[in-house]
Amino acid sequence: MTVTGFPTNPYKGTRDFYPEDLIKRDYIFDTWRQTLVELGFSQYETSLLENADIYIAKSGSELGGSQLYNFKDKGDRFVALRPEQTPSLARLVAARYKQLRFPLRWFSIPNCFRYERPQKGRLREHWQLNVDILGLEAGAAELELINVLASVYKAFGVDKNHFKLMYNHRRLLDDWLEDYDLTAHKELVYRVLDDWFKKSLDENISELRSPATRGNETDNSNSNEVGIADNDQIQALIELTSQTGPAFDKYLHLSQNYPEIDLLQKLTPKLHPTLEFELNPCIIRGIAYYTGFVVEAFDKHPGNPRALNGGGRYDNLMEIFDAPPTPAIGFGMGDVTMLSFLENWGLLEGCEQFENWALLRQPIRVGLLPKTPANLEKIYLDIIPNLRNLGKTWEIDYDYHRSPNKRYESMKKKGCAEVIEIF
Amino acid sequence: MTVTGFPTNPYKGTRDFYPEDLIKRDYIFDTWRQTLVELGFSQYETSLLENADIYIAKSGSELGGSQLYNFKDKGDRFVALRPEQTPSLARLVAARYKQLRFPLRWFSIPNCFRYERPQKGRLREHWQLNVDILGLEAGAAELELINVLASVYKAFGVDKNHFKLMYNHRRLLDDWLEDYDLTAHKELVYRVLDDWFKKSLDENISELRSPATRGNETDNSNSNEVGIADNDQIQALIELTSQTGPAFDKYLHLSQNYPEIDLLQKLTPKLHPTLEFELNPCIIRGIAYYTGFVVEAFDKHPGNPRALNGGGRYDNLMEIFDAPPTPAIGFGMGDVTMLSFLENWGLLEGCEQFENWALLRQPIRVGLLPKTPANLEKIYLDIIPNLRNLGKTWEIDYDYHRSPNKRYESMKKKGCAEVIEIF
Repeated sequence: MTVTGFPTNPYKGTRDFYPEDLIKRDYIFDTWRQTLVELGFSQYETSLLENADIYIAKSGSELGGSQLYNFKDKGDRFVALRPEQTPSLARLVAARYKQLRFPLRWFSIPNCFRYERPQKGRLREHWQLNVDILGLEAGAAELELINVLASVYKAFGVDKNHFKLMYNHRRLLDDWLEDYDLTAHKELVYRVLDDWFKKSLDENISELRSPATRGNETDNSNSNEVGIADNDQIQALIELTSQTGPAFDKYLHLSQNYPEIDLLQKLTPKLHPTLEFELNPCIIRGIAYYTGFVVEAFDKHPGNPRALNGGGRYDNLMEIFDAPPTPAIGFGMGDVTMLSFLENWGLLEGCEQFENWALLRQPIRVGLLPKTPANLEKIYLDIIPNLRNLGKTWEIDYDYHRSPNKRYESMKKKGCAEVIEIF
Repeated sequence: MTVTGFPTNPYKGTRDFYPEDLIKRDYIFDTWRQTLVELGFSQYETSLLENADIYIAKSGSELGGSQLYNFKDKGDRFVALRPEQTPSLARLVAARYKQLRFPLRWFSIPNCFRYERPQKGRLREHWQLNVDILGLEAGAAELELINVLASVYKAFGVDKNHFKLMYNHRRLLDDWLEDYDLTAHKELVYRVLDDWFKKSLDENISELRSPATRGNETDNSNSNEVGIADNDQIQALIELTSQTGPAFDKYLHLSQNYPEIDLLQKLTPKLHPTLEFELNPCIIRGIAYYTGFVVEAFDKHPGNPRALNGGGRYDNLMEIFDAPPTPAIGFGMGDVTMLSFLENWGLLEGCEQFENWALLRQPIRVGLLPKTPANLEKIYLDIIPNLRNLGKTWEIDYDYHRSPNKRYESMKKKGCAEVIEIF
């Protein structure tokens, strides 16, 4: 007995990929994969199911709290659908720490789940390119990572008109804060800079002068924060964030103490002259997590200026699995964001690069009109092998009794670019 | 604060794919995908999460019972990790039934979850190629499906030495049973034929004569089944299953009433002369589900004779979503089974076809030994672009102070096939 009448919508916050949708997503995946492989990276993959406790252990994170998809399996194991890939990466590396040959250049394209209210650009299930370099020293790793980021974007046909890559270094920012006697306000400055591009200059300065009381936060920061009263300090922060004047010059000067930043300042414009790179003190990439270098791609679309993806250095990756401290640097890039970025800039439909790729996945279809069932032998033995050699596919019309005109029309409606009658 | 010391094994019954493992799995996926696209099929994909009730509605199935991964989400929705792809396919087709242009030729490569004791060849998570043709008439569809199956196997370099394709038709078997007055024993015969190749002839005949009392079954069949006492009937069944003698000739004669079987008998040997095809009355493919034509690929490996994958016609696919009845035919093929099949026959490592493919995913790596950090500019601007043009990747050695010999050895250990000193 079968129950009937179930609704046909997908589970809330997830997507059905009909063939025309999957073509676009797989263009993104294939472009990611091909670029990474060309740059010497190896793909790995883990199961969607992980021990739920490894996410909960990272206390203070929404990912391991209210947004986690977790449940007890039928053997009473506490499991989760992964909300992010990094803990699984750490697990794989820790499990074979002694056998693996560092540096590792690894990538993965996992689907990740977050329980949240679905909204534009944020779904319960999304896919995310994760790229990581483990065991490579600072400087070399930053240069390589930013070269990967640049190469990935260029592979989609984008240039400095569409986006820019901004990078920063948290310890450099700390040095600058110390120089301007602002270390006591570090938490406040980090928080305001992290949201800098989402607000006006006036709003940001006002927040720096007198921070709004904030309830309901997850990062445990002080809700009775002291604002910055000194006008010279405020002026320095205005210069820093607008990248002009003596305070920003000071930032550039201090950056020479960080060989990884110095290297990027000198080499990136030569490496990728069609792209824009910028040392930008406002790039923070969240309050916790990253330990030094951070990087962000920023969409220049006038209707939708926003961060596209980000990454940075996170040297304490391995501790939850008791493996030795390992220099690690990486970035993530989501399929939902990338798809809307490419669509907004007209880099999918109608774009030659995409259409050429799509033809490989949806080849030209030829309609075949046999006169009688006896023609099937000729079709399968002679015609189909020839069409395969030409990279074409076919549709056979079995309505032998209809008029040739109607059969021809029917093949055209089914998307056949050519129609052949078989005798 | 971070908790440490978590175990590094994957969740029970799932696999970690280190790069060397993913290469093999993706060779299988890419070969599947390329073959299907060349044959005019389009890929679709659905979310892993589905309404749990659609599996439970198919009563009597283990997939919707004790083996189902189901849980309540934080909004009290009853969800499941899909155990199979077919209900999701039916959902997508039902949702756009009027807009879609039939026949549909669709495939997907989903991961599916089953809660069971992990054992050789059966895991809690596996991937499965699902190929379906919807809305194409009997005969045309069977020929096309078996052509797809044959083409997929041939794409891996296999031939009649490795496996054979066996097909059957349930209504044809019913006709034969009627001719031999065995209709009353249909359930027993179906059940014994379904397990035919797993037992000896003596065991099978003994079961037909006096069926063992079976408890604990899920298919609601009668546990007090009556055996077949008539020696002529037993003799007919022996002839049928050994494909010799008048009872099998009768089967062949009756098969001419089924144009789809007749077409396969005539065309398949000509279409794929390097493969073996066989009309085999023992092919049942489970007690429920299929409604006519059934097909099975059988591994001829002497150490491991077994079914590799199967499929058939299932015309009542759409009813749980209240869409019109639609002719449907399809097959599934699992990644675990396919991987061990190829490995057992030596069709992966050391096989030219696989190695050529793998080189695209793990290109030749060149070691670069700069004398000083100043050489990095030359490396990134001149050498790396040239290596990319040649389809090679690179590893840079940053230990400027070590001896050239030691640096050379280190690059070799990291898998570099060539090493270049940069001045």
